[in-house]
Amino acid sequence: MATVTEMSRQPRVVIVGGGFGGLRAARALGKAPVRVTLIDRRNHHVFQPLLYQVATAALSPADISAPIRHVVRKQRNTEVLLAEVTSVDVERREVHIHDLAGGLDRSVPYEYLVLATGADQSYFGHEEWEQFAPGLKSLEDATALRRHILLAFEAAENLMTTDPEAARTLLTFVVVGAGPTGVEMAGEIAEVARKALIADFRHINPASARIVLVEAMPHILAAYPEALAAQATAKLKRLGVEVRTDTRVEEVDADGVTINGERLTAKTVIWAAGVTASPAGRWLGAETDRAGRVMVRDDLTVPGHPEIFVIGDTAHTIWRGKQLPGFAPVALQQGAYVAKVIRERVAGKEEHAPFSYFDKGTLSTVGRLYAIADIRGLKLAGFVAWVLWVVVHIFFLIGFRNRFVVMFQWAWAFVTYQRGARLITNVGEAQTEIARRESVGSGWRR
Amino acid sequence: MATVTEMSRQPRVVIVGGGFGGLRAARALGKAPVRVTLIDRRNHHVFQPLLYQVATAALSPADISAPIRHVVRKQRNTEVLLAEVTSVDVERREVHIHDLAGGLDRSVPYEYLVLATGADQSYFGHEEWEQFAPGLKSLEDATALRRHILLAFEAAENLMTTDPEAARTLLTFVVVGAGPTGVEMAGEIAEVARKALIADFRHINPASARIVLVEAMPHILAAYPEALAAQATAKLKRLGVEVRTDTRVEEVDADGVTINGERLTAKTVIWAAGVTASPAGRWLGAETDRAGRVMVRDDLTVPGHPEIFVIGDTAHTIWRGKQLPGFAPVALQQGAYVAKVIRERVAGKEEHAPFSYFDKGTLSTVGRLYAIADIRGLKLAGFVAWVLWVVVHIFFLIGFRNRFVVMFQWAWAFVTYQRGARLITNVGEAQTEIARRESVGSGWRR
Repeated sequence: MATVTEMSRQPRVVIVGGGFGGLRAARALGKAPVRVTLIDRRNHHVFQPLLYQVATAALSPADISAPIRHVVRKQRNTEVLLAEVTSVDVERREVHIHDLAGGLDRSVPYEYLVLATGADQSYFGHEEWEQFAPGLKSLEDATALRRHILLAFEAAENLMTTDPEAARTLLTFVVVGAGPTGVEMAGEIAEVARKALIADFRHINPASARIVLVEAMPHILAAYPEALAAQATAKLKRLGVEVRTDTRVEEVDADGVTINGERLTAKTVIWAAGVTASPAGRWLGAETDRAGRVMVRDDLTVPGHPEIFVIGDTAHTIWRGKQLPGFAPVALQQGAYVAKVIRERVAGKEEHAPFSYFDKGTLSTVGRLYAIADIRGLKLAGFVAWVLWVVVHIFFLIGFRNRFVVMFQWAWAFVTYQRGARLITNVGEAQTEIARRESVGSGWRR
Repeated sequence: MATVTEMSRQPRVVIVGGGFGGLRAARALGKAPVRVTLIDRRNHHVFQPLLYQVATAALSPADISAPIRHVVRKQRNTEVLLAEVTSVDVERREVHIHDLAGGLDRSVPYEYLVLATGADQSYFGHEEWEQFAPGLKSLEDATALRRHILLAFEAAENLMTTDPEAARTLLTFVVVGAGPTGVEMAGEIAEVARKALIADFRHINPASARIVLVEAMPHILAAYPEALAAQATAKLKRLGVEVRTDTRVEEVDADGVTINGERLTAKTVIWAAGVTASPAGRWLGAETDRAGRVMVRDDLTVPGHPEIFVIGDTAHTIWRGKQLPGFAPVALQQGAYVAKVIRERVAGKEEHAPFSYFDKGTLSTVGRLYAIADIRGLKLAGFVAWVLWVVVHIFFLIGFRNRFVVMFQWAWAFVTYQRGARLITNVGEAQTEIARRESVGSGWRR
């Protein structure tokens, strides 16, 4: 055990972001002779690959998250701050923060800085589309989407007898972007409409819902081999999802989208098309790629600043000639690597092996009981891949409790097709939201 | 099976409110030759006796609720509307509603009307206190309280080193009203502070939190025999809750409360002191008691309107010379009774036995593993009463799934003292809220 005096001489490591990369780095430094400060805007770590299950009412927010300070509670060298970073002074080696609970602004000095701040939705220069086509990056996004989707069915039920045209628009769901999130969302909305809600309405048939998945590239799931993507496309079609590849979104407003010159009226448009890195690059004044990711060296440090590491979705990392995708395993491995480098540096070692990525493969679900997998050359599509997906995802969920609850809820949903979290909360708030969207929408067309 | 023509001649029963009373009435009419319309402002039924567990992060909102239309999905004679009642035209026998999903206003005609609209918090003429002392009546209230309580610990952690006085104010929790909800809230906050959060902070000791339970009457839990209430008081004191009986709240503002002339600075004040009935009495122009409850006849109809029933917290019902309390069993039994009367009337029977209440007893928890019970003369306090409480509450939770998840989460919490739903969402919103409270608060003192 280090004494208090020894501890106060230990180097300070500031980690910004409690996602996969940042939290892994913090945990890997739990026994190192450093003082760790982990800063996040939220009090919880989110298991992002399952956000779509919250958005489609299969899981509750608490099932896929864990309080950050609870995860690191046993690391006496680690403190957690609920705060927002406003800037970084690279010369004075200080992070400026706005404390989100107490409201104070202050500076946190560092000897080592790890930026793991993730990514936001990108609307490719059309930021005005965001209000009409929300994305899925946080629990707040997920519960807002859940409310929106469930309210669309309620509104259609109420309007069906008087205005069937409006009801059809309400029952049209457009998902923009056919990466893993877009494919999962489209598949799950189809399951909700065709199975979970099927007996619950009197005036509409939820199964008549139209679900359109729009992708600008020639095939969906660009990270997968074409043959697997073709199988996923076929599965989506069997679920009743219209898959539109080679299709560009030209306009998004309160009443729908324009794609390849065609007008699609829809009250629900979900954006899963692109990401832009968080402002870490701007804080540092560092070189970034077009998506705002910081160009890092092969040890994940920023050129000219060997004390600053950038990892996960915030970093532009080249591995074997290709850019690494924004997947959880990349962030996890980078978090572990950076912790190792810091431990070595503190121990006086100057030379470090460069970061090397171990690709365990990729997995995505497509609706119920179906997934595709590409694991080191092994290609799978169907039920076996889905079982693998379940095992992997439950294994990585933090904490035994969540694992158990999620497993049970999935088993239950498997048998009954039902969903445990079909709550519409803050209906009034949504009303205002919808009213605002309506008025902005008509304002545009006038 | 009734044909469509037969069905369209069947009497229409409109039930307003999907709480215990309204939902029970709707279910009991599932096979009756009537058309049922169930109207609620929310899409879900809430198991209100467990709301305090959501407010203290032990359960997720979805664990204690069920979508109303899913509960009655198999009743082909029943439709569910997500709508708000704006008024009742008792002459034309129409309910005027504002549809909360589609946005339309319309009228719903009825032959029988059941008003089961529940109750709101009452601030006894000090409605301006509501912003400083929120109550616990809905899932939105519960998640807002959860955010507030968890943020108080976060803010105290951030301010402890610079402003220990502010931190102490943040760690003071005042619960006003020592009925079952107030006692449960105070006990649970004590458990959260002394057990669940104990290892998670670096600058504050969560166990140093001060929890004050304020009650105007000479003893807590007025519905219980005095000896049991004394045992509950002793248990609360062992949990570290200060119990202040014979104490009146004279002022509530952004910085605390004034009780019996004494100033208590606190950033969290929770109101569990009184209820006022929903506006059903005003809709009807009927006679009400001081709390706004409609004075009903012994068959729960409104005098002069044998086709209008009022039940649950909205009704003032006298049973054996005493007014029935606003407990779930009363509402459940009244809902079943009203459905029986309607079935009899539709079958041509004019005389009905008056409503009679079967008192199964009362049960309340006081912290972990401790409850008090008063069951038909049998008085219990301690662990056995708590086991009984768990069994009863899980049994009444709607749906097998919720029962199982809740049971598991309780078992887990029992072993670990932990809480599964420690999420702070919409931190920004809370900031605005707190900022607003601050400014209003200072505005007052100026």
